[in-house]
Amino acid sequence: MTLRIGVIGTGMIGQDHIRRITQVLSGAEITALNDADLDVAKQVAAGLAGVDVLDTGQDVIGSERVDAVIVSCWGPTHEEFVLAAIAAGKPVFCEKPLATTAEACRRIMDAEMAVGRRLVQVGFMRRYDAAYRALKSVIESGDIGPPLVYYSGHRNPEVPPSYTREMAIVDTAVHDFDVARWLLDEELVAIRVLPAKPNSLGGNLQDPLLMVVESESGVLVNVETSVNIRYGYDIRGEVVGESGTAALADRNLVDVRRGGAVSGRVPADWRERFVVAFDTEFQEWINTVAAGKEPTGPSSWDGYAATVVCDAGVDALASGERVAIVLGEKPALYES
Amino acid sequence: MTLRIGVIGTGMIGQDHIRRITQVLSGAEITALNDADLDVAKQVAAGLAGVDVLDTGQDVIGSERVDAVIVSCWGPTHEEFVLAAIAAGKPVFCEKPLATTAEACRRIMDAEMAVGRRLVQVGFMRRYDAAYRALKSVIESGDIGPPLVYYSGHRNPEVPPSYTREMAIVDTAVHDFDVARWLLDEELVAIRVLPAKPNSLGGNLQDPLLMVVESESGVLVNVETSVNIRYGYDIRGEVVGESGTAALADRNLVDVRRGGAVSGRVPADWRERFVVAFDTEFQEWINTVAAGKEPTGPSSWDGYAATVVCDAGVDALASGERVAIVLGEKPALYES
Amino acid sequence: MTLRIGVIGTGMIGQDHIRRITQVLSGAEITALNDADLDVAKQVAAGLAGVDVLDTGQDVIGSERVDAVIVSCWGPTHEEFVLAAIAAGKPVFCEKPLATTAEACRRIMDAEMAVGRRLVQVGFMRRYDAAYRALKSVIESGDIGPPLVYYSGHRNPEVPPSYTREMAIVDTAVHDFDVARWLLDEELVAIRVLPAKPNSLGGNLQDPLLMVVESESGVLVNVETSVNIRYGYDIRGEVVGESGTAALADRNLVDVRRGGAVSGRVPADWRERFVVAFDTEFQEWINTVAAGKEPTGPSSWDGYAATVVCDAGVDALASGERVAIVLGEKPALYES
Amino acid sequence: MTLRIGVIGTGMIGQDHIRRITQVLSGAEITALNDADLDVAKQVAAGLAGVDVLDTGQDVIGSERVDAVIVSCWGPTHEEFVLAAIAAGKPVFCEKPLATTAEACRRIMDAEMAVGRRLVQVGFMRRYDAAYRALKSVIESGDIGPPLVYYSGHRNPEVPPSYTREMAIVDTAVHDFDVARWLLDEELVAIRVLPAKPNSLGGNLQDPLLMVVESESGVLVNVETSVNIRYGYDIRGEVVGESGTAALADRNLVDVRRGGAVSGRVPADWRERFVVAFDTEFQEWINTVAAGKEPTGPSSWDGYAATVVCDAGVDALASGERVAIVLGEKPALYES
Repeated sequence: MTLRIGVIGTGMIGQDHIRRITQVLSGAEITALNDADLDVAKQVAAGLAGVDVLDTGQDVIGSERVDAVIVSCWGPTHEEFVLAAIAAGKPVFCEKPLATTAEACRRIMDAEMAVGRRLVQVGFMRRYDAAYRALKSVIESGDIGPPLVYYSGHRNPEVPPSYTREMAIVDTAVHDFDVARWLLDEELVAIRVLPAKPNSLGGNLQDPLLMVVESESGVLVNVETSVNIRYGYDIRGEVVGESGTAALADRNLVDVRRGGAVSGRVPADWRERFVVAFDTEFQEWINTVAAGKEPTGPSSWDGYAATVVCDAGVDALASGERVAIVLGEKPALYES
Repeated sequence: MTLRIGVIGTGMIGQDHIRRITQVLSGAEITALNDADLDVAKQVAAGLAGVDVLDTGQDVIGSERVDAVIVSCWGPTHEEFVLAAIAAGKPVFCEKPLATTAEACRRIMDAEMAVGRRLVQVGFMRRYDAAYRALKSVIESGDIGPPLVYYSGHRNPEVPPSYTREMAIVDTAVHDFDVARWLLDEELVAIRVLPAKPNSLGGNLQDPLLMVVESESGVLVNVETSVNIRYGYDIRGEVVGESGTAALADRNLVDVRRGGAVSGRVPADWRERFVVAFDTEFQEWINTVAAGKEPTGPSSWDGYAATVVCDAGVDALASGERVAIVLGEKPALYES
Repeated sequence: MTLRIGVIGTGMIGQDHIRRITQVLSGAEITALNDADLDVAKQVAAGLAGVDVLDTGQDVIGSERVDAVIVSCWGPTHEEFVLAAIAAGKPVFCEKPLATTAEACRRIMDAEMAVGRRLVQVGFMRRYDAAYRALKSVIESGDIGPPLVYYSGHRNPEVPPSYTREMAIVDTAVHDFDVARWLLDEELVAIRVLPAKPNSLGGNLQDPLLMVVESESGVLVNVETSVNIRYGYDIRGEVVGESGTAALADRNLVDVRRGGAVSGRVPADWRERFVVAFDTEFQEWINTVAAGKEPTGPSSWDGYAATVVCDAGVDALASGERVAIVLGEKPALYES
Repeated sequence: MTLRIGVIGTGMIGQDHIRRITQVLSGAEITALNDADLDVAKQVAAGLAGVDVLDTGQDVIGSERVDAVIVSCWGPTHEEFVLAAIAAGKPVFCEKPLATTAEACRRIMDAEMAVGRRLVQVGFMRRYDAAYRALKSVIESGDIGPPLVYYSGHRNPEVPPSYTREMAIVDTAVHDFDVARWLLDEELVAIRVLPAKPNSLGGNLQDPLLMVVESESGVLVNVETSVNIRYGYDIRGEVVGESGTAALADRNLVDVRRGGAVSGRVPADWRERFVVAFDTEFQEWINTVAAGKEPTGPSSWDGYAATVVCDAGVDALASGERVAIVLGEKPALYES
């Protein structure tokens, strides 16, 4: 059975998922689209066959030709469409953030709990990256002992002028927070944000930022965001365990010896680095949902936790102090 | 439009391609199957929907529900089915070898030339591997100057008891020959085969073999086959140019520090190493053929050339001498 | 001319320097020894020719057969012998710490300033390591832009039972502090010490520690001490600049492929890692001093600064707060 | 006791050894010099203390102030001085080649056998390189099984105009031959020399050359000489064993990330690559000889074997055929 997917939000990221589903992956098709700008939705639909362009996101969710929904529109509208999908009993893949406030995330969890099953998956695609999965697998093997410190380096060559200093936390480091929670399999409880000497290439931004985040058991998660570092898109991760360490390896395909140096390539941007992770993320979601099962990826709780950590991070950036991260009890629906 | 594919030969490799097309890739479906053992074909079909199991390979080729054919049956039967597909005007993907003799390959090329267009693609999947493509791209950039030597190491942890000493050439090194022709963009003209001290783990095989192959312009291609080397499936390649070199990089995902060592993983087998290359190979073939274009992958000429090089290699192994590789003129149909 | 050296303190480290000078390096000889345990000094002297064992360290300094002094005795006695060597106008190589209090370091600097020339060199041998020198040279080349963050990882396989939690700062991290000052060519102004989840292999120690140290210009120096990590002695360093990074490379001599892995060696201990740096440190000191020049290595000011940073670190460990590092003005004698 | 060394030949290499002994190493001094150009010898002596410049090499050997001799003059004169040193019963370190013909090498061995003890050491310094020693140690550990193939890559950025095509064998590959004999601990029995497509940067030289050399037990030694490859001085070595491999690792000190690449340094020339090996070679020779023991380094037999392999290589280059290497029986004196 081919899974029929409706997409709300056909901007850059939505279009990329549509391309993925129609040209790369197996087992799904796009049947309905909506965008805040209907002309954009129509242009996207023009390149596809059998796709309805509908007036509202609600219409996409309600369409009889739609089995599952992708929410890839503007963040502040996520809550509305995720809640509607839950109400309609349809699986929904929501790009991060799940919602822009902790309260909104809570409302989504309440709705899911009322239904009694998970319908929501949040787009933290790093969990589908082969290297991060290998890292988690080393931790779980016990080969390096229990983790004590986790370094997470997030380096971007550049950011657009619209990028603000808070975005280093809520847009950039949010991936590091999620991957830390997932790797360590525990929650984060406090955060400090320490600005380093500012990069002159970053204008007025406080960049880089060093964040020291504490987990429940005391693991220190050391996040670095450097968003103007020019040399490439470089995602670093090293787990320091009791008796060993494991780190994401460099990913160059060929070693070139030339002009006195041996060198390998650093990815140019997140697309190059994570294209396969995005493919895996969606293929696994399609397979799970088409089989009528609950999604196994990042849940509403994960989306909520990321939002709460980011909120604490923004406070910590403003105050310069250690800020506690208070999540409350994890509902039973989201255990394992 | 979904490309409807018929598969002749549903053994291990055929089943893997069927899985790939139905569960991984986009734009194609399996509509007909045949196998020398019809029960096997029926079992494979049982897991799929809408697939006809037909009595003969010719029936698969002739089926109105089949747009393109995959030939993944026993090598000696390839010629018959490839010729039939050409006669039916249907694109055909033929696993290597194209045919088991140079004469049979010639007959296939004659048939294609009679039709006046390329219908055949041969399964040399290394050309679709991202690392080999990066290697070719370094050569073409001119960054390391014209190639003078190419090292191609082909190491397998083990081979089955049925593996013979000639298979190191016709089954194993054939991939190295093809990738050398493709990387260097020229033909091979002579070959020497030098057995090294035999690996005691390989029983009576002459393993490893070192082959020194000469290209038209004089590049030396140094092929090593080690098929009982236990430590992993290790594919090595280094181009020595006039002013620099480029080599396939190690591919470990994580670096682990433990017990006095820092270490990365070596792939366990060809599946782990080349799974993505197989996916890319078939997705590009599906896209090309579904668009009504001639295939852009390895042609009948490439299948023929590989067979001629292997024949010379087998002679060189027997004689211990340098054996010339004589291809004859390349037909215009196969230029670029 | 052969430089005649007297050694005060012939314990493990003193003996190692004596071996170095007599068996490895050129241009110096050992002429006098003293140790708090004279029997030890006599045993050491027994293996050498022409060495006087003298009753006190002061006698070594005063000996007519001694041109220069090595102070490698117990830390609390350093001040006395360094001051005496300055008073005698003899060059003195003092193992770290220069002295155990900031005040004592100040007294040493005052004595040197009274003499009007540098006579003291402190044993921070990392500055003589080829890899650290290459790191500094990349910074100075401007290739990666001005430094913004410096990661300094200091990992030991194990420590003796006598090791206390403060020693992670004053004995271990002191090297990271010195090398950070030297690499960045500026002073450190504040320090936070954050204990991670404790390593169960380290008994009651707070291990690992993460320290975030700030430099004058705002560079964040991120020091990790892990002193029970079992896998090896692993010294890590990465400078994050505005447009690139530079990191100490792995140092394995051979890559071994075996049992599914490709692996290299991690040094077993500081001897293996820094033996050549120690040789270089002493050879350069011998050459400089024998030529009648002021030593060019770490000065009394460097010894003083290290002590002040360590004091602040110990306070920060106790309080959990950010502690300011106050050095005062740098005397002109120590401007390079 | 300080070993008193006389040096015959004070050209570039002789001067480098003199610098090493007087400024770097321990336990030896230079007491006498001679050179074919006495003015050069006098200039070199002017920078030293207590050195006699003598009229002939024979005078150096005969001097009462000389305990051991270094022969670093023009190759064709080596035989005369080595024989004279043996006659005088003085240890002699002879730069390669031991002598320019196999017959001359035989005469030297005969002289040593007449004396009944080894006095000669030949300057194959790679045996003192830490990376080659680690490679040998992996072989001896049995971790990768018995060696079957050994790749030895010898790449130079450039050679002077006086360099001839035979020199790729007798001057360059001679080091690879010696190291192969030492690593494998067996003799070489046959050689093929296969010129690759010529490097246009190398003028009329046949460069690179690929040599396939066979050992007694059948190991294939695959030597590549590339002497105009511009990118750096790159010494490669990989042992392929029955169940694993071991290879010389890259040697960069720092990894730099910049401009889309992560890169490390390739040595500029043999000095940078082997400076420490030269130091170790001489320090071990000094220690051994000063202790009155027979030298443990490369013997006259090793010098003889290298010459015979080179002779066969030159024949093989001329004929294009496989040429046997015939050493005859190894005298008991040279059994380790």
